[in-house]
Amino acid sequence: MNRLASLVLATACAALSVPTSAQFAKTDDAVMYRESAMFIMNQHLGRLGAMANGRVPYDATAAVANAEVVAAMAKLPWQAFGTGTEGGKAKPEVWKEQAKFKENQDKLQAETVKLVAAAKAGTVEALKAQFGTTAGVCKACHDAFRKD
Amino acid sequence: MNRLASLVLATACAALSVPTSAQFAKTDDAVMYRESAMFIMNQHLGRLGAMANGRVPYDATAAVANAEVVAAMAKLPWQAFGTGTEGGKAKPEVWKEQAKFKENQDKLQAETVKLVAAAKAGTVEALKAQFGTTAGVCKACHDAFRKD
Repeated sequence: MNRLASLVLATACAALSVPTSAQFAKTDDAVMYRESAMFIMNQHLGRLGAMANGRVPYDATAAVANAEVVAAMAKLPWQAFGTGTEGGKAKPEVWKEQAKFKENQDKLQAETVKLVAAAKAGTVEALKAQFGTTAGVCKACHDAFRKD
Repeated sequence: MNRLASLVLATACAALSVPTSAQFAKTDDAVMYRESAMFIMNQHLGRLGAMANGRVPYDATAAVANAEVVAAMAKLPWQAFGTGTEGGKAKPEVWKEQAKFKENQDKLQAETVKLVAAAKAGTVEALKAQFGTTAGVCKACHDAFRKD
């Protein structure tokens, strides 16, 4: 292997081995990032829940807009649970049971994509059913991986 | 006007007069919502800045992903500056100079859409130019409307 190829490979490997947490300047930033994304997601889920449960009138346009924010937020927090970012509301299980945690992330992302589809269906019944499923996924993950 | 029409009109007016802040259960939620969205936006802008300024290697795919989060976040905070939500890092000017504040919001949203396009252009030069413009819009608004 010539020197250039060797350097390219070394650089590529170094890039691959950078932990996700390196995207954050400090652990507090990672904690704040994931809690910020969860907070925004929860606010918009709450608005969908209020519609689904009849506390506010059903509004198809607002339902789609809220569901789209939920689905966008559902992609974000996971990059902020890298090695060395223990703390905040996260239980140590996040780092001890990584396969199970990843399974929960994937499930949330899949169900929030379905939530957008359900909102686009344009009926409160469709929204209600998928809201219930999504909220169940949130709860199961919080029970296993979030303190309090 | 018959009673039904009257009721429909009254309901529509009530809906129109609900302040944006009513989407939040309490002022603290509105403050946390807008600061959460700004924090996430800032993290991703920081990653773009690191690429634009050569502190980390340019990565076209990552640039697009980061710019898309920035653009998505740039839509969110404004709903959380409703009447009665004064506090946090926001200066009173937010509520006193609403037209100017709205102008800044619109500018940020327009420039972050251009940031996604610049990232998609696939060169560090394109990214760098639009990153600079976007960061300038952030700074001008913070100088006028954010404490410290």
